[in-house]
Amino acid sequence: MSLVGRAPDGQTDRMTSSVTYTESPAPSFLFDLDGTLIDSVYQHVIAWRAALAGMGIDLSVWRIHRRIGMSGGLFVSALLRETGLSLSREEIERLQRAHADEYRAQMDSVAPLPGATELLTTLTERNVKWAIATSGNAVTARPALKLLGLPESTPMVTRDLVRHAKPDPDLFLAAAALLDVDPHQAMVVGDSVWDLLAARRAGALGVGLMSGGYGREELERAGAFRVYSDPADLLFRLDELGVRDFMD
Amino acid sequence: MSLVGRAPDGQTDRMTSSVTYTESPAPSFLFDLDGTLIDSVYQHVIAWRAALAGMGIDLSVWRIHRRIGMSGGLFVSALLRETGLSLSREEIERLQRAHADEYRAQMDSVAPLPGATELLTTLTERNVKWAIATSGNAVTARPALKLLGLPESTPMVTRDLVRHAKPDPDLFLAAAALLDVDPHQAMVVGDSVWDLLAARRAGALGVGLMSGGYGREELERAGAFRVYSDPADLLFRLDELGVRDFMD
Repeated sequence: MSLVGRAPDGQTDRMTSSVTYTESPAPSFLFDLDGTLIDSVYQHVIAWRAALAGMGIDLSVWRIHRRIGMSGGLFVSALLRETGLSLSREEIERLQRAHADEYRAQMDSVAPLPGATELLTTLTERNVKWAIATSGNAVTARPALKLLGLPESTPMVTRDLVRHAKPDPDLFLAAAALLDVDPHQAMVVGDSVWDLLAARRAGALGVGLMSGGYGREELERAGAFRVYSDPADLLFRLDELGVRDFMD
Repeated sequence: MSLVGRAPDGQTDRMTSSVTYTESPAPSFLFDLDGTLIDSVYQHVIAWRAALAGMGIDLSVWRIHRRIGMSGGLFVSALLRETGLSLSREEIERLQRAHADEYRAQMDSVAPLPGATELLTTLTERNVKWAIATSGNAVTARPALKLLGLPESTPMVTRDLVRHAKPDPDLFLAAAALLDVDPHQAMVVGDSVWDLLAARRAGALGVGLMSGGYGREELERAGAFRVYSDPADLLFRLDELGVRDFMD
């Protein structure tokens, strides 16, 4: 593209007059947690499998995987629909408690994803605002802060703080409010289709990570603006998302 | 499309003369095992994660998932390349033994995938030839026969019977030979990209199942002729693959 315009007298002339427009502010980042910053999706999958089997419910493991990241309530509704079962409120609560217990039993094998800590540190160093927004409850999500070497004061919105979890936009809207930024100027980073759908409903751009086990094409079809392998890959290509070496 | 042709004299005339061609025989089916007939992929993933961690190797779980179904040797080569590590032959053998032990410890939670047994029974009833071809070794693969209610005499090719596993075509070529069918007339049914790549190298049509955790688009991009959710879904749409209610 050339910056040379044609003047009315027919001569070419370099365009030097500036155009008035509202500059887009530097983006803020709203991160999902499981599969995005920590490598915990498969442990959640196996924990749900065990919790369900404990109640006599056999559901194929890939169907559980594809539901991870959505609200626990929607997760259970979807599986009841798929299996044709019905559970009482008490049974649903027992199922969710069993999942939490099974997950905690495996939490020792959960590690930060490659580049997660470095990515967050880099954003902070460049004065880019960021927060964590997860469909998980505080009880399972808060220990992740220590795993990532983050202080307890890290801006984080958990399931228990909002009315609806993903794919509703509430978690990301609340996280944007916590940072005092316009969700339309935020990038949502997540590994699941539910993150990307919630991002679109929040009016934010969604960035997909393959580190939760979804393939690139699935994330693109759910509306991802860009797809990276994991936090390390995103960090390496941060300039693609409008974060420059030296931010204001 | 109309079967009505125009005769040279200008009058339309129903085309009744038959054309001589070699009819395509009824297809045979070559099935992958893990993630295709039994719901064991996530247990294999977690078993590899534990075996690797036991040797001090941290690899993101989704990267392990994406390698399941390929030959154990290629699996280890790929992960060594990705991590930049090198292992001695003795260490590689120890890793593979550790995986087998970890998998066996979880085998109680492995179930047949929905529709798997019914699909195989239906094919047998309709005189459609089928076999199993798996990158797994006999020691982990043979117990699956009992799980599926199949006799020990079921035609099955395991890793130890061929030179190269998937994505090389050997397993499917050997399975076709076992059935005495031309691989070009066979359909390979598998859940992983490696099955579909091996199918193409064998000259067979690949049919993808989402029950191993890959998404539809990934399987289509690897060359799947059709993609179904799981064996039950394939059984429901068997006519799409050329298997009719009453076969010769």
